[in-house]
Order: sequence, then C-alpha cells, then structure tokens
Amino acid sequence: MAQLFEKENNLNMVYSFKNDYSEGAHPNILEALKNLNLVQQEGYGVDDYSKEAVDILRSKISNSNADIHFVSGGTQANLIVISSILKPYESVISATTGHINTHETGAIEATGHKVNGVDTKDGKLTPNDVKSVLEYHVDEHMVKPKLVYISNTTELGTIYKKNELEELSSFCKDNQLLLFLDGARLGSALTSQDNDLSLDELSRLVDAFYIGGTKNGALLGEAIVINKEELKTNFRYNLKQKGALLSKGRVLGVQFLELFKDDLFFDLAKHANIMATKLSTGIEGLGYSLLTKSVSNQIFPILPDTIIDKLSKKYLFYVWCKSGNAMSIIRLVTSWATKEEAIESFINDLEALK
Amino acid sequence: MAQLFEKENNLNMVYSFKNDYSEGAHPNILEALKNLNLVQQEGYGVDDYSKEAVDILRSKISNSNADIHFVSGGTQANLIVISSILKPYESVISATTGHINTHETGAIEATGHKVNGVDTKDGKLTPNDVKSVLEYHVDEHMVKPKLVYISNTTELGTIYKKNELEELSSFCKDNQLLLFLDGARLGSALTSQDNDLSLDELSRLVDAFYIGGTKNGALLGEAIVINKEELKTNFRYNLKQKGALLSKGRVLGVQFLELFKDDLFFDLAKHANIMATKLSTGIEGLGYSLLTKSVSNQIFPILPDTIIDKLSKKYLFYVWCKSGNAMSIIRLVTSWATKEEAIESFINDLEALK
Amino acid sequence: MAQLFEKENNLNMVYSFKNDYSEGAHPNILEALKNLNLVQQEGYGVDDYSKEAVDILRSKISNSNADIHFVSGGTQANLIVISSILKPYESVISATTGHINTHETGAIEATGHKVNGVDTKDGKLTPNDVKSVLEYHVDEHMVKPKLVYISNTTELGTIYKKNELEELSSFCKDNQLLLFLDGARLGSALTSQDNDLSLDELSRLVDAFYIGGTKNGALLGEAIVINKEELKTNFRYNLKQKGALLSKGRVLGVQFLELFKDDLFFDLAKHANIMATKLSTGIEGLGYSLLTKSVSNQIFPILPDTIIDKLSKKYLFYVWCKSGNAMSIIRLVTSWATKEEAIESFINDLEALK
Amino acid sequence: MAQLFEKENNLNMVYSFKNDYSEGAHPNILEALKNLNLVQQEGYGVDDYSKEAVDILRSKISNSNADIHFVSGGTQANLIVISSILKPYESVISATTGHINTHETGAIEATGHKVNGVDTKDGKLTPNDVKSVLEYHVDEHMVKPKLVYISNTTELGTIYKKNELEELSSFCKDNQLLLFLDGARLGSALTSQDNDLSLDELSRLVDAFYIGGTKNGALLGEAIVINKEELKTNFRYNLKQKGALLSKGRVLGVQFLELFKDDLFFDLAKHANIMATKLSTGIEGLGYSLLTKSVSNQIFPILPDTIIDKLSKKYLFYVWCKSGNAMSIIRLVTSWATKEEAIESFINDLEALK
Repeated sequence: MAQLFEKENNLNMVYSFKNDYSEGAHPNILEALKNLNLVQQEGYGVDDYSKEAVDILRSKISNSNADIHFVSGGTQANLIVISSILKPYESVISATTGHINTHETGAIEATGHKVNGVDTKDGKLTPNDVKSVLEYHVDEHMVKPKLVYISNTTELGTIYKKNELEELSSFCKDNQLLLFLDGARLGSALTSQDNDLSLDELSRLVDAFYIGGTKNGALLGEAIVINKEELKTNFRYNLKQKGALLSKGRVLGVQFLELFKDDLFFDLAKHANIMATKLSTGIEGLGYSLLTKSVSNQIFPILPDTIIDKLSKKYLFYVWCKSGNAMSIIRLVTSWATKEEAIESFINDLEALK
Repeated sequence: MAQLFEKENNLNMVYSFKNDYSEGAHPNILEALKNLNLVQQEGYGVDDYSKEAVDILRSKISNSNADIHFVSGGTQANLIVISSILKPYESVISATTGHINTHETGAIEATGHKVNGVDTKDGKLTPNDVKSVLEYHVDEHMVKPKLVYISNTTELGTIYKKNELEELSSFCKDNQLLLFLDGARLGSALTSQDNDLSLDELSRLVDAFYIGGTKNGALLGEAIVINKEELKTNFRYNLKQKGALLSKGRVLGVQFLELFKDDLFFDLAKHANIMATKLSTGIEGLGYSLLTKSVSNQIFPILPDTIIDKLSKKYLFYVWCKSGNAMSIIRLVTSWATKEEAIESFINDLEALK
Repeated sequence: MAQLFEKENNLNMVYSFKNDYSEGAHPNILEALKNLNLVQQEGYGVDDYSKEAVDILRSKISNSNADIHFVSGGTQANLIVISSILKPYESVISATTGHINTHETGAIEATGHKVNGVDTKDGKLTPNDVKSVLEYHVDEHMVKPKLVYISNTTELGTIYKKNELEELSSFCKDNQLLLFLDGARLGSALTSQDNDLSLDELSRLVDAFYIGGTKNGALLGEAIVINKEELKTNFRYNLKQKGALLSKGRVLGVQFLELFKDDLFFDLAKHANIMATKLSTGIEGLGYSLLTKSVSNQIFPILPDTIIDKLSKKYLFYVWCKSGNAMSIIRLVTSWATKEEAIESFINDLEALK
Repeated sequence: MAQLFEKENNLNMVYSFKNDYSEGAHPNILEALKNLNLVQQEGYGVDDYSKEAVDILRSKISNSNADIHFVSGGTQANLIVISSILKPYESVISATTGHINTHETGAIEATGHKVNGVDTKDGKLTPNDVKSVLEYHVDEHMVKPKLVYISNTTELGTIYKKNELEELSSFCKDNQLLLFLDGARLGSALTSQDNDLSLDELSRLVDAFYIGGTKNGALLGEAIVINKEELKTNFRYNLKQKGALLSKGRVLGVQFLELFKDDLFFDLAKHANIMATKLSTGIEGLGYSLLTKSVSNQIFPILPDTIIDKLSKKYLFYVWCKSGNAMSIIRLVTSWATKEEAIESFINDLEALK
C-alpha cells in the first residue's frame, strides 16, 4: 500500500498515533465519489449506490432480509438504534468503559434512557455481568434492562471470541434481552490474529449491529444492520427524526459500495492490525510491557514518564493513565493509513531513549 | 460551467428537477478533498481546514466573535440549535410551512419542545404573526414561546427583503425573543434577483443561522453560525450529544473552505437561480402561470394534469397539489448542477405538448 | 344536597364560577379517608382500597381485564398514557382546542411527541378530521400519527353522542390508530341531558381513557383505564418514572372507592349539570344567547362588556373572548359543590343589570 | 400520642415496619382538610392556604425570597427540580445508593440527563467523591456535571453533619456546581440525636431542596424550596409541564400549613426517631449488631436467617441483603404512626426466638 502515502506527512514532523481518523479516505473511495459524481440520483439513501451497497452487505452477512441503513457517525448510529428499540422505562446495559456510557456526552440519556454500567476487566461483557444487572432490577421502581450493548473491538482494544459471543447471545435470548454490537472498529476485530468469528457468524448472533466505515478508510459512514424483524418497522422515521437521513445519501452508499464490493474493508483493517502488531512487538522487544495483549489496532504500552515526555515531541498519542512508579500507560492507534516507516521510526526513537 | 456536465445524464433519459441534491459535489470540492486527503489532522472539527473555513466565514459575516460549527445536514442543524437554546417549557414559533414544523419527523418535539405553527400566505413570518402567538400564550398553562424560526429562502421559494428581516429582528429583540434562520437554501436567497440583503447584514439581524452547503454544491454540510454570546457556551457538547461531531470533521471543513475561500458558494447559487428564471420565463412564455413569482431556485408552475402526466415520462418533479379545473401545481427545482440544455429541453417538450 | 354547604362562602362575598375545583372534596370522601386512616396498608397503589376500587370500576365498565391505575391529575394522566403508547416518531392527533394541545405547557412534546392539531367547530373530532391528518402524513419525513386524543366533555362543554364515538372508534380501528379519551369531566358528559352513552359502552369504544375525580368531588385523582391488551404491559413502570406512583396510593384508592361504590360519582356530576342548566336557562330567559347549547357543566353566555364588568365585582369567571359589538363570551362552570342560591343570586343580579 | 392509635391494627395481626407510609395522615391534617373544605379558593397552588404555608416556611428557613412550591411526591420533586436546572448536556452527581440513581425508574434520564453515580460507604457524598467525577469529565465527549444531589437522611439512614454539609456546599460553590438536597426524610434527619443542623442553616447551604411531607405525617406532599435566584425563573411552567400543578393545590397547602404552623412536622419526626432508637437499643440489647449506627428512622439489624423467617410471620419488613453465615440484614422503618407497643412486641418476640 505504499502508494497511499505519497502525500504523507514528512516524518521530520510530528506523526500521529492518536487515532484512526487522522487522515481522509482511502483513495479508491475518493475516486468512486468522483466517478459517480454527476449521475443524478434519488435523495435520502434510496439511490442506486446505496441500494447496491445494501445488497452486497446482505450477501456478506448471509441475511437477505436484513435492514441496512447508512449514517454519518458512531454516536449517531448508537443513539438511533438504541432509542428506537427501548420503551421509555427500559434501559441498556453496557460495560462502564463502553462508548455510550462515557464518551458520547449522554447521547443515550438524552433520548430518555438509562445506561446500566457494569465494571469489567477487559471491556467485554459476560453473561454473568448482565445477570448481575438483571438480578438487581426487579420491579417498577427501577428501570427495566432490555438491551445489551457491546463493542467489538472494545474500547480497550480487546475482541470477542466466537464462544464468548455465542454465550452472551444465548443468555440474552433466554432472558428476553436484545443484543446490539457497536462495530466502530469491527474491521479491526474481524481481521485480528485472535479472531475466530466471520462477519456472517457475528451477524447471526446479534439483533442489530453497525459496521464502522469512518475508522476504516471512509470519509465518514457507518452501516446499521438490523436482523431482528420487530426492530425494522419504520426505522427510516428514526433516521429522519434524529437528523441522520442525508439528502445526498449517495455519499454514504458509494463509500460502502467501494469498501465491500471487493475486500477493501478487510484489507484496510488487516493493514492497521499488522502495523499495531509491529508496533507492539517492537515495544515489547525493547523490554516494555503492554496493559493488554495487543490483538487489534489499539495498543497500550506502559512506559516511563520521562520517555513519554520525550516521545511526545515527535509523536502524537493519548496518555491513558498513570501506572505507578513514574510510569504511564499510553494509547497508540494504527489505521489503514499508518505508514510502516512511522512504526520503524517510533521503535528506533524509543530504543534511542532507553 | 459546461465542464461540469461531461459525465451527465444522457438527456434521452429521465432528467430530474425534483430537488437540488440529485448530484454529488462541485468538482472543486472533490478535488480539494483529494488534495488534502493524507495530511494528518486533528479530529472532531478542530483540524486546520475547519479552522480556516471558520475564519473565512467570520470575515464574510463581519463578526470575528461568531461561533461557527459544521454539521452534516439541515435537520441536524435545526434540532441542535433549537434544543440548545430552549428551556424545557419554551417553544419555537414557525410558519406552518416551516421545515421544522412538518418535514423533520418531529425532530424538535423529540428534543422536548413544541413548535407553534402560524399560517402564512407565502411562508414568511411577520411581526404580526409572531405577536398573535405571544398574545395567546400568557401563563404557565401554556408553553412559553422563546425562539422564532424562519427559512430563507422559505419552503415556498420566497425570500426575506431587508426591511422585512429588520422589522422581524427588531420585534424579536423588543419581545425578548431569539431569532434563528434556516439557510438550507441561503445561497439561492442571497443571489436572488429580488434580494437586497448581504450575508453580513443578514447575520447581524439574527441570533443564529445556518448556511446550507448540501443544496449548494457540497457533498454534505451546513455551517451553524451563532452570533449571540449566551448561545455559544459549551455548544460543542450539544454537537457531540446529538451525534453531529464527525470524527473526520475535516470532511466538512475542506468543503466550506472551498465554497467560501473565493465566491464559489455564490456562483453556484447564482447559476441555480438563473436556470430557475430561464425555466419560469419559458413556462410563462407558453402562457402558463406560476403559484408565486419565481425569485429563487424553486418554481411552482400551474399546468394541466394531462400535460403533467406526459412531462413526468421524461422529467422528475413533485406534484405539489391540485389547483382545480384539471390543473395542478408542480415544483421544479434547479441547482448548481442544472444543465441549460435540460431547461431548453423541458421548455421545448412543454411547448410540443400544448 | 343542602347539607353540603353549611360552611359555604357567604354570598355577600365574591362567588366563584371560575371552575369546578374551587372547593375541596365531597364530605363522604373526607369521612372515608378519616375512617380508614390508621389501618396499615401496602404502598404504591396496591393497598386494599385501591384494589377494591379497581374491582368496582372494572365491573362498572364491564371489563374484568381492564388495567386501572390512579394518578394525581389530568395532565399527568395524559402525558403518561400518551408517552407510554407512542414510538419516538409517532404523534397524537387532537382538536386544537384539546387540553393537551394548548393547556398543558407542552407536556406531550416534553415526552418527545408532536401533537397534530386539527381545527374543529365544537371541540369534537370526526373521522374526517382525523383523515385529513392521515392524508397529509405520508412518509418518513413527517411524524406518523398513531393515536387520537379526544375529551368528553370537550374543552368547549360539548359531548360525544354514541354514534359519533362509534364512528370515530371504527375509523381508528380501520386505520390502525388508537383512541384515547380524556375524561377529566367525564361525569358531566355521562350525566348530560343529551348523553346517550353508558360508561361501559364508552369504555368499549376506546383503547384507553381516564375518569376524572378532581373535577367531580375528589380532593385529587384520576383513574386511568386501559382496555387494549398491548398497552397494559409494564404500565406501572411508566407511572413510577413520571412521578405518579404515590407512596400512599391509598389516598387515591379510598376516594375512587367512595365515588364508585354507590353512585356518588354520577350524583355529583348530575348536580353540576342541573346547576348549569338552571344558569343557562336563566340567562337565556333574560334574552341573552350562549356560544353553544349548554349540555354539561360549562356554559358560555354572550354578554355586554359593561354588564360583565359589573358582574365581575360579585362573581369570579373567565372572560373567554371578545364577541364584537362591545360583547364578550364568558365561561361559567358549575360543580358538585355549586349552590342553588348562588345561581339564583347570579340570575337576579344579571336581571337587575339589564 | 396514644390517641392516634385507637383504630390501629390489632397486634395479633401482622404489623408493618416496611416503611413510613403505611398509614394515612396525622389526624390534625385530616381535621384541617375537613374544616377548610368548602371555602372557595383559587386553583393551582395560589390558594390562601398554600400562600400562608409558603410564608411560614420562608420564615422557618429565614429566607423571605425563597420560591416554594408544593408537589405530590418525591420522584416528582426530584425530576422537576433537576430537569429545570440542567442544560441538555449537563448531568447530576449522586451516590450510587441515591434515590434518583436506582429507585426512580430512570426518571432523571427520562428528562434527558445522565446521573453520575459514585460509590460511597454510607450513602453520603463528600467533596472528594464529587471531585473524582469532575476530574474524569474533562471535555465535550462526556457530559458536564453541574448539579450535586444528596439525600438527608440518606437512603441508608445516615445524616449529614453541619461541617460535612458546609464542606460540600463550599466545594460546590468553588466549582460552579449547584447543590440539591432530597429531603424525603428531612424531618427524621433534623430531629436525629446526632443532628447539629437547623432547618435554616441547612437551607442556606443548598441551592434547592425539598421537605418531605408524605413520609412524615401528610397524606401526600413535598415542599420544593428554591434559594438560588436563577433557578426560580418561570418555575411554575416546569410544574405544569410535568403534571405536578394540582387543580386543587389547596390539598397540599393545607397539609403543609398544618405541619409547620406549629411544630407538628418536627414532633412527628422525633417520635419516629425515638421509636427507631427504642427498636435498635432493644435489638442490640439482645446481642445483635446493626449495619450502621441507628441515627434516624431506618435501622438495619443483622439477624440469623432462621429468626428472620419466623419474625416475618408477624412483622412486615424488607430483607436488605445477605450478610454471610446464614445471616441477613433487614430494614426496619418507624414513622410518626409507629406504636410503642409494636416495638415492645417485636423485641419480645425477638427475645423469645433466641
């Protein structure tokens, strides 16, 4: 993918590992937008490109009846899906680290619903986590938990294994709970070296989920997938009401078409994961440890504060939290656009700072 | 602008006058997105392009203190601005034809607020219209109207003259009301042959407004402008909560930069208006009348149903409503991308159908 | 009922015809509250008195499966029932004079839903009124009307005849709409001289309704009745969330028990209606006309402004609106507590002012 | 207060220590309602009794400018006050045991706001607890905490000491936070043997609070007190919108008049506390321990499961949670109506079960 980077930042400048949305879109996507630009199309997501993208995605998840809708961003996807499912007194269960619980400015509560946060060790919810919430909420003086929200990859970079998702899915069914998966970084999860889930297997195990485009090569865009029949009714009304029905819905359709007509979506995610592995391997090779095993495009090295300080002159990243002994945990994120040279440069610089 | 149309629809096919968002973006915008694509930038709207676009817009409205935020669409802009302003018991006054009153699926009500609709003859609100609402709402058993919502151009294609906006603005100030202008088609309004308002004059007369990009050459994007100090506080929290803070905010920044760094925004709107005038002149030349005088990019010809039926085989447009005597009113919309040949073809076909 | 008034206002003082809630409760109700006061009971509406009151009401409406819940007031009843029924994008249709549309401070909108107001001549909705709303709301760019809200008596003192309610009910069923009746003054409606509906007939024709206690002899309290199965699920959660589940639910149960264990509810309403008829007959006898025929406990005489001014020295009432020619319409309301002497005094005073 | 119990439950029957709302109202209150019953009064809380009660309360809190409003219940008071204060993106901080956090069915979230729960050891919030929330919420991706919610007594029966409330109040002021106190059981707190706060001292330290009537001798009713100027504006609109403005507001006014015209409110609370002390002393005298020191009308004894099982045949109470070793914690609540004989009987029965 070397050709991607011909207009890249000069590495003498600061290079960002802050997130996976520091660049624009994969060039193929821009090219497609340009090629189809002047063809007149219907508005509001019923253009030919959106329809074709929907068909392809239905085929990839092996569910020709799925409802699929494209929206601009992850918070929007989360708030629309969740508010469309819940009755006024119903709540959604999430890991306390879940994006909806702390990093969406109360978007879910703003639609009227409580988020029941559960502490977890790795950002993943287990049947027991969910059970503890159910056991506590027993009557009409408390909200009624109805939906379980998970992220894959999680906000801590971990992923759900097939058996874990099966158990959670099964527990939800047995307890009349619905299961919704936030796939802002689903590409990274499904191409992780540790992953044993296919996209269609994952889809079968959840009632609804979304596939993140923004953090995996699109300019913007997430694809909401609704498998459960009763959740489909009049869904477009929800999109419109929440300001998510773009006049030029084609903008999202064209991008998902490009991402999924071949394997671009997976190729881009794989690249991000490979870069992350290279980064974590390099860091571990220098004797530093990581907060969690690196399995996706977010890694959490634990480094001395003095070194972090010096690194931050040349690289952008978040300092996650203190780790005691003048050490801190930082977060490094790779993406479809991450340059191998940037990884090498980072490792070299880190070595030089020892 | 002939070069715009080299990949256009073949006119032997159906040509759409349904709206001003049937095509993608002006080529310059796509080019800019491509050129800046791989430069790393901060997320969430604080990238260099967004900041530069904000600076340019501030200069164009002669208000260096204005808060300017880019969002994806018009309904989103409306619901975020309005819900950020009103206390729970406060309401917004709108023409019954106003977009928020009927064509946004209750987006404002979904944030908890009543829209007080007022019937108008031309889609424009006058001080008397607003006064009638105030006089009715006198105590705590009714909502308290606090905000006046207007559109320019209106949903009927009419525009506010300078003195009309001054009077309304002045009335609002005198009655402790705030004034918000929906500029989804502001370009068309400000380049109308009947317009006597400049962008900065208009800006000075309202507390907040938004400048529509989607319907005037952008892929997507509206620029919210907040002039009133007390409405600025923590506004980004509102954006995030409602799902409007795009990770790749650059996508919006780049587009507004391109639209406003020179006069592209106005040039595109002017083209749409000229095409509309050509269309209305042609139609009137054939002896048909229009619902309202054509001053912007929406025109409302009154045609025999039999002719409408035949036209609809070659052209897409909305049939607005019946007009008696086997006649109906249709809506034709032109845009930055409307081809002069399409106008000529429409007039020729209409003539042939006489 | 002369014994009711032994502690009444001295008629030399100002007497109020402003509303039907100027006094406290019927003495029997206070007596019952006193007699049962120190018996320990379960909280939150599952006390013995509430349960017995529910059983009696079920029997009176001939529906042993109805869900019945007691709440404090009418706005509370309306907002809880309506918000419990509607999905986020659904709306409720009401006469523009409907209480929820203008006199509840946007309570319905505060739960996220639009009220579609329809102008009517007498405060009553017809199938055609509802149809006009349905025909306008055709796609996801507009709210989806799902519920029809009517009041009986209406806010203009009119009542629904059996055939009118049957037609409306039937239209709703045919159009997948639900029908909810606000019975704040249901007692007055059902004991009107023009009424031909029994309580159980009315109940069968609506999906949900409430029976007003506050305006018919209770200290406070309305009984929500839910007939439609799918609306019953978890209803108590809605009560609790909206602050309507009183710790001492017995307070409401005891009152409804007293109102319905015999015919007190109907007797009190009948008295109010008789007083209203006496008042309207007297006023008409003096040559004045009424806005609408007086059929319930609200009457709307049209009087000269000079006389209104003088009457207002001795009587409290609302001036409804101007009627041209130095005349205005006033509203006089009678209640279970209205004294016959007060009526006579009013008529005498009016006669003296001719 | 022996005369209170002449119509009491026979102690051969089950006696309830489940809560402090098992009985009706103190007889003086019923008497007052009866005496004033037929005097005509204005509706919606501007009757003479409500006004007089407001005056008396203002005097008792030494703040003649306080806004005081009477509402039906605690959840209603909480949701109205909190939603009236917060902007859409602002949140309220509460102990996880706080009533709004878990026992009001998401009432706060239903008005659009997140509750930031903080674990505490005794149900009381300290400046450090609040600080930890502030430190976490640093930008627009998270809600903005604006209000601190505390209860006195807390849900665990503990109370705030003067210095604790002063420190918290001071911390809030320093950090632009508002402080709201839920006084559902304020009577019990202020008459606790451990209390060193007067009502007016407490009032000065908070921006708003409410005084609970329902759990201290009223049929229903809580008095919302607003001290902070900016929170007073148009408050009655909030009451009406949320269904809290009773037509017969007199019902609440009369009761608070009776509770506060002399010291009935404090006398009743004192009785409840004395009964609780008697109960806890008796239980400890038998060798059992309590979860927390008993300072108010809720006590939490730790008893063997076998004994709990037998006690439950004669007494109603909640089993709070398991305590290991075949022991559980139960909650016993006393009230203004608790009979000394019932306490003695409970202790005797407990002794007999040893």
